[in-house]
Amino acid sequence: MNFSLQSFLYIGDLLGVAVFAISGALAAGRKSLDWLGVFVIAVVTAVGGGTIRDMLLGRQPVFWIDNPEYLYVIFAATLFTLFYSRYNKPPLKSLLVADAFGLALFAIIGARIAEQAGSEWIIVVILGTMTGVAGGIIRDVLTNEIPLILRRDFYATAAISGILLYIGLLSAGFNASIAAFSGMILIAGLRLAAIFKGLRLPVFQLPDEPS
Amino acid sequence: MNFSLQSFLYIGDLLGVAVFAISGALAAGRKSLDWLGVFVIAVVTAVGGGTIRDMLLGRQPVFWIDNPEYLYVIFAATLFTLFYSRYNKPPLKSLLVADAFGLALFAIIGARIAEQAGSEWIIVVILGTMTGVAGGIIRDVLTNEIPLILRRDFYATAAISGILLYIGLLSAGFNASIAAFSGMILIAGLRLAAIFKGLRLPVFQLPDEPS
Amino acid sequence: MNFSLQSFLYIGDLLGVAVFAISGALAAGRKSLDWLGVFVIAVVTAVGGGTIRDMLLGRQPVFWIDNPEYLYVIFAATLFTLFYSRYNKPPLKSLLVADAFGLALFAIIGARIAEQAGSEWIIVVILGTMTGVAGGIIRDVLTNEIPLILRRDFYATAAISGILLYIGLLSAGFNASIAAFSGMILIAGLRLAAIFKGLRLPVFQLPDEPS
Repeated sequence: MNFSLQSFLYIGDLLGVAVFAISGALAAGRKSLDWLGVFVIAVVTAVGGGTIRDMLLGRQPVFWIDNPEYLYVIFAATLFTLFYSRYNKPPLKSLLVADAFGLALFAIIGARIAEQAGSEWIIVVILGTMTGVAGGIIRDVLTNEIPLILRRDFYATAAISGILLYIGLLSAGFNASIAAFSGMILIAGLRLAAIFKGLRLPVFQLPDEPS
Repeated sequence: MNFSLQSFLYIGDLLGVAVFAISGALAAGRKSLDWLGVFVIAVVTAVGGGTIRDMLLGRQPVFWIDNPEYLYVIFAATLFTLFYSRYNKPPLKSLLVADAFGLALFAIIGARIAEQAGSEWIIVVILGTMTGVAGGIIRDVLTNEIPLILRRDFYATAAISGILLYIGLLSAGFNASIAAFSGMILIAGLRLAAIFKGLRLPVFQLPDEPS
Repeated sequence: MNFSLQSFLYIGDLLGVAVFAISGALAAGRKSLDWLGVFVIAVVTAVGGGTIRDMLLGRQPVFWIDNPEYLYVIFAATLFTLFYSRYNKPPLKSLLVADAFGLALFAIIGARIAEQAGSEWIIVVILGTMTGVAGGIIRDVLTNEIPLILRRDFYATAAISGILLYIGLLSAGFNASIAAFSGMILIAGLRLAAIFKGLRLPVFQLPDEPS
């Protein structure tokens, strides 16, 4: 990986962590958790995906244990959310847009890590997607919701599409920066289309009968 | 492990993965998830138990990361379920029977792995049972149900009984194939008795008061 | 770590495991799980926190796999709960008090392990807290509750306060035993104040609107 892509991904990763922490803190607020609960949900939303990826690959201690700056960013973002929300309505649309870029970064970073561990393409897709979406799934499980991502959002699908583009460009001989940025742009673009145009996948609907 | 048992377990493992993926996809359909959500639930149901076993033992990367054929099987089984269910009612009773054999295979495979890692018998029982049932538990948590397995099914109990038989026969000097097949037959038999005869464990019932 | 602290922590750890197993079994009873489900919930409540800590740090196989006495203690405690509860009302207040001491032990033991793995102070706080509270969180997720700990209890906060005191005393040059006992006393004391005096954190309350 060349140096500028590396630096960009690191900065982007910290920004993504901040955005995901805010989304976790807001979800916790809708469930009336206490302050500590808000921090817990913010932490798992922000680092949950990367943590599961690292544990599956055997990259332990997991990434944030040797890089506590992730946790400082999460704490700062959560404190900011707690105080900002006392006086203002949260700007949900802007957060969704920020979240689209967070997802793009996390998914491609996760895909790169899986790829550099020598995984096959389908594993790269799965671990990259998981890095992007697992934090939000744990957030929804802890706040007792069926994960939104699984229900009706064009979310993991956006991540998968971008990772496939990234893998395709790499195999076609493009360099890592071009492949990574193209993948990220596709992910963010698809998410923005989903947010502003209502792009969705078909639903699989069975009658809710006893199994 | 002799070669024919090994081959049998590998084929059986892939079949078990397919059955568990179908059961996950059908559970997702009862909750109206979108197609991607259906795939996610199918994957975690099928590989969740073995993944947790591998992470507890430190066998990483976990099994499916270096064997992507598990994921191809899951994708094929899920696609088949999506298309089959458009035109037909799912054959729930047949699936329960298939699931009984999937459980038998997963539990004994998990027990063998724990045993070959040198674990004591109680750990062999727990890791084998977990390999068989944890995927279904995660499926139920993600679809916001109290895991069925914990509530009223003679399910984990069947796995435990079969693993105990397997361990007992091994200690009595029987060879691995006989012990493994006997354990699997007991598990599948107990499950079939539970499905067709309503075999159950007693329930522990406390009043639902504030703690 | 000097020998007497080590022995004390080991005995305390087993007692903490028993108390947490009982709390898990009672939660399972309030949801009418069958006996096996009760055991499962007891096990995850008792060893869940330490298991996640070990997986995050890469200390595998996780602690109970090579120390099956933890599971024997859990089984004994669960059986005791099942039989005791047939004839008696569970003494919930006494259990909360026992739980306060269990939390104190688990949190400080987890913090010591993280510290001896060379982690920075913030990671020591997080892994220690997680060792104390994650079991209860998994228990609540499996029984389909929003984790109580996140909602309104002065629980994780007590653990964090005690771990910070422990770290502070260590850096100030006190020996490990004094630091560990002081941390445990603060955790148990804060929990008892929460139980008997209603000590709480402020709640973060947002309207429950669609995001």
